[in-house]
Amino acid sequence: MKDSFPFPVARIGLIGGGQLGRMMVKAAKRLGCTCVVLDPYPGSPAGQVAGHQIIGGYHDPAKLRELAESCDVVTFELENIDTETLIQLEREGHRINPAPALLSVLQDKLLQKQFLAHNDIPTAEFVEMPEPELQAFESFGFPLVQKARRGGYDGRGVSVMPVAEDFDNHLPVASLVERFVDAKKELAVMVARNQEGECIAYPTVEMCFRPGENVLDLLLCPAAVSAETAAAAEALATRTIDALQGVGVFGVEMFLTRNDQLLVNEIAPRTHNSGHHTIEACITDQFEQHLRAILGLPLGATDLLSPAAMINLLGDTGARGRPVIEGMAAALSIKGVCLHLYGKADVTPYRKMGHVTVLDPDLDEARSKAEHVRELIKISGEQHP
Amino acid sequence: MKDSFPFPVARIGLIGGGQLGRMMVKAAKRLGCTCVVLDPYPGSPAGQVAGHQIIGGYHDPAKLRELAESCDVVTFELENIDTETLIQLEREGHRINPAPALLSVLQDKLLQKQFLAHNDIPTAEFVEMPEPELQAFESFGFPLVQKARRGGYDGRGVSVMPVAEDFDNHLPVASLVERFVDAKKELAVMVARNQEGECIAYPTVEMCFRPGENVLDLLLCPAAVSAETAAAAEALATRTIDALQGVGVFGVEMFLTRNDQLLVNEIAPRTHNSGHHTIEACITDQFEQHLRAILGLPLGATDLLSPAAMINLLGDTGARGRPVIEGMAAALSIKGVCLHLYGKADVTPYRKMGHVTVLDPDLDEARSKAEHVRELIKISGEQHP
Repeated sequence: MKDSFPFPVARIGLIGGGQLGRMMVKAAKRLGCTCVVLDPYPGSPAGQVAGHQIIGGYHDPAKLRELAESCDVVTFELENIDTETLIQLEREGHRINPAPALLSVLQDKLLQKQFLAHNDIPTAEFVEMPEPELQAFESFGFPLVQKARRGGYDGRGVSVMPVAEDFDNHLPVASLVERFVDAKKELAVMVARNQEGECIAYPTVEMCFRPGENVLDLLLCPAAVSAETAAAAEALATRTIDALQGVGVFGVEMFLTRNDQLLVNEIAPRTHNSGHHTIEACITDQFEQHLRAILGLPLGATDLLSPAAMINLLGDTGARGRPVIEGMAAALSIKGVCLHLYGKADVTPYRKMGHVTVLDPDLDEARSKAEHVRELIKISGEQHP
Repeated sequence: MKDSFPFPVARIGLIGGGQLGRMMVKAAKRLGCTCVVLDPYPGSPAGQVAGHQIIGGYHDPAKLRELAESCDVVTFELENIDTETLIQLEREGHRINPAPALLSVLQDKLLQKQFLAHNDIPTAEFVEMPEPELQAFESFGFPLVQKARRGGYDGRGVSVMPVAEDFDNHLPVASLVERFVDAKKELAVMVARNQEGECIAYPTVEMCFRPGENVLDLLLCPAAVSAETAAAAEALATRTIDALQGVGVFGVEMFLTRNDQLLVNEIAPRTHNSGHHTIEACITDQFEQHLRAILGLPLGATDLLSPAAMINLLGDTGARGRPVIEGMAAALSIKGVCLHLYGKADVTPYRKMGHVTVLDPDLDEARSKAEHVRELIKISGEQHP
């Protein structure tokens, strides 16, 4: 392994300037790297700390090329990128991790499911649905979940249909449908894998969603499951990323069924909302881990230093304009509260504006503190309708 | 307490762009603040992450004014600043923390000692020495330590004189001399105090120096002292900062004498090298804590999550030019190693280029890992003499 690095250790090109990128840039600088961010919006959360941003879209071949040519290694904090250009750039010798070919599989939910099935990784039964039609849905059988092949995130691009009448809510795009899983819990495991094939999992977390919403509402670590289930989840996630031959950090979301079966739901080829607590709660956080992986450095320890609960801070209903943060001082007076604001200059309803991780030796305490913080902090906007 | 903050929560003006500033800027952004750094060198470690730097000296009244006028609150990461200008700016209504008057006391080692004596805070016996003369040193008695009133740091401005013959090494400046303390250990306690007078100490740390050097060589937390001694050190440090009425984070360095007496050696009115481990090892790190204190926010928990050992990464003897970091991958392969590089584009001998904190449930293990890392990582320069 190469072990002599002239400063900077690496010039990282980061596609996407959101909060995941922001936290990655901080880790990158700590490791002696410099960063260039590609994002269409000037002053993006990541651009604010990187010090260098290329203003451009994730589908703009010229801008992607400009980024690659100014860096030693390119990575990304979101999936919705022009992979054809990335594949071409990789062919020309640019280093891009995770691999663009892998990204192009995972950004298509049908190909992702086919990959899982092909590798005998348990996942909910599914069929391709190129043109959604009631008859085809009925022959697959309700309850089902329709997923657009492309472009979905945070619940967008997903339609849950308990009964045939819900077909009215179908997405009129190339899709797959899968068996609705009446899960007992939703779990997630962050996995890191480097170029040497070294692979390490973070402790299993439990994701709680509000009924009818798909934005993560509360995350708990460790998950309240048996040690066997947690170990099985970590082993399944590791096997999945090994099968992918992925290099970087990946989020593997799973269902725990009522009969304690684990089914892989989705793979995110990037750092993930369900790994935010690793900043304070684990020895090596997911952002530094991702960089270690893509730079060919040894992976760091994922041991949990403290139980943790995490909530997202979302823009209020109706919030517009310059954000106004209320209840911050009250929240910070609670022991173990770690606040992260993302530096977004504009708030919109449900926009992710920050998150809070609560550390407490007692996970139930951490959870109730986090729920209390969610009541305390409100992010509204100065612009009133 | 005010609890509604339009974004940004505060615009922080930071005097000094070194590593302490760099780590503070990261914490500031997490709390929803923006930062402007004042530093004479473009691309300073803190400026790289702040995104906004005023190029100018710490003694330039016009630049200090420019900084104050562009910010809501001014703070600093070093002591050697023109306090007269700061006092004038404060009079005009600018918010500056810690208070410039307090800084002007602490930046003069004689006034600092007089403050300690006046407040019955135990410290080594001392006398003023406006013009160093052998006869006066002899009448005070050897062994002694001569300290320049102004401008010293990391051992500069300090001359240890075991016997009268060492007078040849005296500093020809206005000074004080103090009794040489044959300390069993050197301890330090970081203390935070906010505007409401809320005051909290971090766990006592042990500072190890190499014989004859004054740059911190190894830091251990918790210190290997009895629980009573640790509690006494924390109480003494808290009493010291309470007496100062300081607002911000302060480092209180102490001697533990052979008969287990604690003597305050020096107070740093800022975040400190002996608090670096708090980033990973404590719930709230010293940098966020400082910001909470100066912004009038509640202080955070200082609980230790894991024992920790910290070493500085210094430029090699003879190192010049662009830094070259060797042994980084080897160091990162050791479990619990957390690396921090400061982004300095030039290395010089003994320059602080970064630090490593090692977390381990066993402090002795953490220590031996840290010592091993010190052997592994070498920071040389591309320019050879």
